[in-house]
Amino acid sequence: MDSSVMTQFIGEVLGTAILVLLGDGVVAGVSLKKSKAEGAGWIAITLGWGAAVSIAAYSSGYLSSAHLNPAVTLGMAMAGNIGWDLVAPYIAAQMVGAIIGAILVYVQYMPHWKETKDPATILGTFATGPAIRSYGANLISEIIGTFILVFALLSFGTGDFGAGLNPLAVGVLIMAIGLSLGGTTGYAINPARDLGPRIAHAFLPIPNKGDSDWGYSWVPVVGPMIGGALAAGLFMMLPI
Amino acid sequence: MDSSVMTQFIGEVLGTAILVLLGDGVVAGVSLKKSKAEGAGWIAITLGWGAAVSIAAYSSGYLSSAHLNPAVTLGMAMAGNIGWDLVAPYIAAQMVGAIIGAILVYVQYMPHWKETKDPATILGTFATGPAIRSYGANLISEIIGTFILVFALLSFGTGDFGAGLNPLAVGVLIMAIGLSLGGTTGYAINPARDLGPRIAHAFLPIPNKGDSDWGYSWVPVVGPMIGGALAAGLFMMLPI
Amino acid sequence: MDSSVMTQFIGEVLGTAILVLLGDGVVAGVSLKKSKAEGAGWIAITLGWGAAVSIAAYSSGYLSSAHLNPAVTLGMAMAGNIGWDLVAPYIAAQMVGAIIGAILVYVQYMPHWKETKDPATILGTFATGPAIRSYGANLISEIIGTFILVFALLSFGTGDFGAGLNPLAVGVLIMAIGLSLGGTTGYAINPARDLGPRIAHAFLPIPNKGDSDWGYSWVPVVGPMIGGALAAGLFMMLPI
Amino acid sequence: MDSSVMTQFIGEVLGTAILVLLGDGVVAGVSLKKSKAEGAGWIAITLGWGAAVSIAAYSSGYLSSAHLNPAVTLGMAMAGNIGWDLVAPYIAAQMVGAIIGAILVYVQYMPHWKETKDPATILGTFATGPAIRSYGANLISEIIGTFILVFALLSFGTGDFGAGLNPLAVGVLIMAIGLSLGGTTGYAINPARDLGPRIAHAFLPIPNKGDSDWGYSWVPVVGPMIGGALAAGLFMMLPI
Repeated sequence: MDSSVMTQFIGEVLGTAILVLLGDGVVAGVSLKKSKAEGAGWIAITLGWGAAVSIAAYSSGYLSSAHLNPAVTLGMAMAGNIGWDLVAPYIAAQMVGAIIGAILVYVQYMPHWKETKDPATILGTFATGPAIRSYGANLISEIIGTFILVFALLSFGTGDFGAGLNPLAVGVLIMAIGLSLGGTTGYAINPARDLGPRIAHAFLPIPNKGDSDWGYSWVPVVGPMIGGALAAGLFMMLPI
Repeated sequence: MDSSVMTQFIGEVLGTAILVLLGDGVVAGVSLKKSKAEGAGWIAITLGWGAAVSIAAYSSGYLSSAHLNPAVTLGMAMAGNIGWDLVAPYIAAQMVGAIIGAILVYVQYMPHWKETKDPATILGTFATGPAIRSYGANLISEIIGTFILVFALLSFGTGDFGAGLNPLAVGVLIMAIGLSLGGTTGYAINPARDLGPRIAHAFLPIPNKGDSDWGYSWVPVVGPMIGGALAAGLFMMLPI
Repeated sequence: MDSSVMTQFIGEVLGTAILVLLGDGVVAGVSLKKSKAEGAGWIAITLGWGAAVSIAAYSSGYLSSAHLNPAVTLGMAMAGNIGWDLVAPYIAAQMVGAIIGAILVYVQYMPHWKETKDPATILGTFATGPAIRSYGANLISEIIGTFILVFALLSFGTGDFGAGLNPLAVGVLIMAIGLSLGGTTGYAINPARDLGPRIAHAFLPIPNKGDSDWGYSWVPVVGPMIGGALAAGLFMMLPI
Repeated sequence: MDSSVMTQFIGEVLGTAILVLLGDGVVAGVSLKKSKAEGAGWIAITLGWGAAVSIAAYSSGYLSSAHLNPAVTLGMAMAGNIGWDLVAPYIAAQMVGAIIGAILVYVQYMPHWKETKDPATILGTFATGPAIRSYGANLISEIIGTFILVFALLSFGTGDFGAGLNPLAVGVLIMAIGLSLGGTTGYAINPARDLGPRIAHAFLPIPNKGDSDWGYSWVPVVGPMIGGALAAGLFMMLPI
């Protein structure tokens, strides 16, 4: 791994850690007992996730391409915005960052876990779950959500999401997907954002936690990768 | 149809499909039973529709002028921002895109339709309806809303809504119209956005659906066209 | 009145009409019975007023300086951003525009007035009123709110609020004042925005309307003019 | 103190006064009895604080670097964006400004204090307090929140927060921290913002006020300074 790849690796670790700290953080704030944000609802969650991605892009875009998402990395590689040799280190870095971010959420809300008695609420602050469990439909939901994400990112006409107005536009995009398409599965639309914190949920000594719902865990990994690939495929077929 | 018109046709199909998927998607998310966004309210709907238009403009503005709305196309043609020969293909593409977008909303929220027993709620995720039914007043509401839309778009001083800051400004405009003028008819302000999904509602096999309220369907078609034409007419009379 | 002053006069009429249509429109949407936005609350009102000012600035900034507010015009004249000879036509235009805007709100929400039985709610969609009536304290509230408005506008370093990012920044400013300082008097911070619609309330044949609270009407006129003058005075004393 | 330092001192006083007026103002608006914003909730508070920082940065960035926060000043000095000789005058100015801002909040909401019977609500409009009192955990929360603040500000690649798009990006950052990390301690993330108003709370003749919770007061001072220093330390270690 040469120095430049190392710099990009650090950027993706850092950005994804901030992404998950702020993104899972808003779910924790809204869901955990005695939090000042308790009950702030879906608007808080979608606005918070949008802003989380903006800040994560600002905070890593000078080091890496600020994908912070394996499905985005796959789509960008397919579209030629990033070399295929960077795909593996990017995805590895995103997984490391996502686990670090989840640990930081655990630390940040430390006194609130034992006040929260419902294991599903606790898992929900780490990983996504379906509103109505139906693996086929849930998979399609994640495919559609990630398709919109990657297609819009490719439409921005740049592989660099950390520059100028881009982080704010990306934040609006994430908020839009959450508001419009998130009601079904909680919009993982990012394998690292879901699997990393699910792993952290499994090994962290969280009071009142239940199981990590591994039966569902493949959906927010496979769906986003398919959605990202389809978006890149369609984008490349456009007459531009 | 030469190649350039075909590219613009594809852009309007694509942009309007994304517009309706995200726009009707937020109504579905807020209205359908067991959705995680259920009950998020009018703020979610107006913010979601604003962001939907922003993302749709980003995602099509490099192919077409990103009108995504027959009333906007009419106003832009009157103001000379687009040739009259493009009006028919633009409107046709917008109708095709709107129907595709509505089908995608149906797919995205698949498990939620049968949980939702109220036919009016289901129709409301596809097409608009009046808060108080009064065709004259409802028509005037749609005229005023679309007048503001097209007048502000003309004021941006560009026929290109996909570039730079424009998609964000357009999103704020749509949110403003929703918050301030949408309480009466649900602000169609776009014939394709209303008629396309209403047609999809009629032919899709949606559980628990009722009729498609064809008696009202002309209001969100005729009102926006009048409003758009009035806005272009006033704009052209200004001393600039 | 030469042609250029006439153009600016038209710009201020138009911009203030749109400002009041959208601004009073969001209060009507949130307050009037059977509106789809009913009960959307203070967030909707402050976000809606912020967006209203953004859209009004976009829609008039190519004709005039888009003050849309006599207190802003006074402050800008004191700071030398506009000639004193323009103050009278600007304020006259703003009053005309505000009355037109209020009439449009009356038309837009036509079927909803007779459903709304509370006269205070109806007046509240036109003009502001104090949360706790205390003329001295209310006056100070309006002075502080308008001070922040005009001081921040002067800090933008431009007298032109219709260009580039400025309309969005001005929208954030109005939202900020509403959220932070509006709880006491409903933040008129603009004599035309309050007095114009109050006059319209008095002469329009609105079902269920009560009196126009003329006893309070001087507060949102005098307070903003004092606040705007103080802001310009302090700004001119700064070592820049 | 030479003239240039004096100008910057004035900028920090002014900016921090506006920051606290608008920031504590939104908490007052949402919390105090009979306010029109009463009950608008956590979204209002986080959006209001974000906008408060944007407006404060616009309103002072042409005089000083618009840090408005001792933890930011410390981090910027460590990173070399500001001379160490400016640290003491900046922090002094921020404390003066924060006290002035708190006095203005007291004046703005004058009739509402005696309507509000709960001393904790009144203190909460001036200074932060923990959701669950646990000094160690609360300190860590403030460290993490301020770390994200200062790290992201350094990532913007400029020490000048008043120019161009920066005030809006900083506003999104503050909103993000509030939504995602604020549920635990109310996100002081700024020693001056917390200590200044706490001092004002102690000496102002506020009806129904209780004690100023001096036992907790060190947490939102020490935590942010540690978090800011850690962020600058990590940032300087990055391979850029």
